[in-house]
Amino acid sequence: MDEFSCINRFFSPLAKSKEALNLTDDCAIIAPNSDNKELVISKDALVETVHFLPNTPPSLIARKALGVNLSDIAAMGATPRWYMLALMLPKPLNEIWLEELTQELSIIQKQYNITLIGGDTVSHPNKLSLSVTVIGEVNKGAALRRNNAKPGDGIYVSGTIGDSALGLKILTNQLPDASALTQEQIDFLIHRYHVPQPRCTLGKWLSANNYASAAIDISDGLWSDMKHICKASNVGASIHQNAIPLSNSAQTMLHRNKSYYLDIIGGGDDYEILFCAPQHLENLLLESSLNSEHKITKIGTITSNKEMTLIDEKGDKLPITKMGYNHFTS
Amino acid sequence: MDEFSCINRFFSPLAKSKEALNLTDDCAIIAPNSDNKELVISKDALVETVHFLPNTPPSLIARKALGVNLSDIAAMGATPRWYMLALMLPKPLNEIWLEELTQELSIIQKQYNITLIGGDTVSHPNKLSLSVTVIGEVNKGAALRRNNAKPGDGIYVSGTIGDSALGLKILTNQLPDASALTQEQIDFLIHRYHVPQPRCTLGKWLSANNYASAAIDISDGLWSDMKHICKASNVGASIHQNAIPLSNSAQTMLHRNKSYYLDIIGGGDDYEILFCAPQHLENLLLESSLNSEHKITKIGTITSNKEMTLIDEKGDKLPITKMGYNHFTS
Repeated sequence: MDEFSCINRFFSPLAKSKEALNLTDDCAIIAPNSDNKELVISKDALVETVHFLPNTPPSLIARKALGVNLSDIAAMGATPRWYMLALMLPKPLNEIWLEELTQELSIIQKQYNITLIGGDTVSHPNKLSLSVTVIGEVNKGAALRRNNAKPGDGIYVSGTIGDSALGLKILTNQLPDASALTQEQIDFLIHRYHVPQPRCTLGKWLSANNYASAAIDISDGLWSDMKHICKASNVGASIHQNAIPLSNSAQTMLHRNKSYYLDIIGGGDDYEILFCAPQHLENLLLESSLNSEHKITKIGTITSNKEMTLIDEKGDKLPITKMGYNHFTS
Repeated sequence: MDEFSCINRFFSPLAKSKEALNLTDDCAIIAPNSDNKELVISKDALVETVHFLPNTPPSLIARKALGVNLSDIAAMGATPRWYMLALMLPKPLNEIWLEELTQELSIIQKQYNITLIGGDTVSHPNKLSLSVTVIGEVNKGAALRRNNAKPGDGIYVSGTIGDSALGLKILTNQLPDASALTQEQIDFLIHRYHVPQPRCTLGKWLSANNYASAAIDISDGLWSDMKHICKASNVGASIHQNAIPLSNSAQTMLHRNKSYYLDIIGGGDDYEILFCAPQHLENLLLESSLNSEHKITKIGTITSNKEMTLIDEKGDKLPITKMGYNHFTS
């Protein structure tokens, strides 16, 4: 099978919107739905051995590649609409692999109401690599930014933190304490590593109601991404370790060994939304969280002193060492 | 130097437009300039050893990565506005390499009036790889497509064809006849391989005046890209070998050995525009070509019989074997 048959057979069926021009042209043609909308655009790259382990099933690679970008769109409070996929594939083309990849892409498309509009399929001498561009839409001026957090704002996260980092430790045999977990707990953590759950509904809700002063999706790690908000907003943050929402599995690990909190707040790949909101919205946010699918938890407060501190149950500052994933020092 | 210092030092200076949000957020925010415009978007991937040779200077990689995408935008008749860059880099980060890359990007930005608005910088275990997304703007409905060529239309190309393929043969020591070339001719062919010259002015002119019934940029090779137009338009093409515009260097090679015409029409990486236009525009197109920077040449005619034929000087059909670059069979 050659490049063009591959596109016809596997990718054209995913590209049925008018914007894609049936993948027969040099570009796709896109426009916002109306004059009071603008587009947000995100582009990530994923490389075998760096972002996913060798022999990861193609369905999980599809989930991750789309998920990390959809999570960026979610954190901006936008609605995803289209995506482009550049695939760099070792030769020869593996039809079963492509069939599995595109089947999963088709499921993700329906789930998030997005369609493929273009990209590139090229050969790579050894490592499978991908780059995904996702384009979403948001009301003009309503996109959530990182740079407007104010001292006194509450700091919130969706879901639970640290599961993905612990899941990766299990997959790479670096979590000896995993013996304390049930098989179900182990599967849960690994699934959290493999399958980002972009919080699109929460992001849209926050932007539509103008609730968040700043937002980011947690990809580098809670600590590191909090730092991104602090830097952009020129503020500090005080985070209560005990308030960080943990899954049952993560709690079990932390109970065995307190040092796992470094993995939990430093590990990354959570793809939850970390956001700040004015103090007067606290009750509203926490109450609506009780009644909806998007569970959110308050974990701290923005400070004016530009420092980031982690506070333990006794109110003492915990020492913070190197935190967060960084591609060229990690 | 880590990932974030790298972004601050090398990429933020390239991203000064409001759309880029200083590269501090998860996405860029873009919109067409006015209600009667739409956006065109192109995404390509380039891999060391597949799209450029190892040790290619970063300035040439920048030229190629931007050039191939700008050429797609040009072939749609659009004006490029923004780009995103995903860089997959072997560790450790090489500051001199990044300095050279971004200096060249800065020159290209000025040349084409585009700005960086986002992307990703990640590590790669061995091969340097890139993916570029370029976004342009065109009047609603005016984008040039591939699917409207009609029997009787003239077939035109910009510039000269085959130089890049011959340049690559020189670089890979596969052109023994190169000894017949002057050093200047050799340098010219290699430069044509390394530095695509996206025909943005020509593309805009064709779309603004509604001259072209179909257009494509020549990346896979004249023969292969002509086939793309024929397939999308459900037509055939008759191309006159002698009419194909050749540089002085390519003529010298063809004079030595007629078989080089296979490289010339099959080799690819020309990044010229191949387009079709109604017969009544022939004089207008050829005359305006004489008076402008965008030299165009008529090379054949669209036919209704859905076959593609190459005609030699005696009017005989030339045999066509495998043509055009294909990532998984070449």
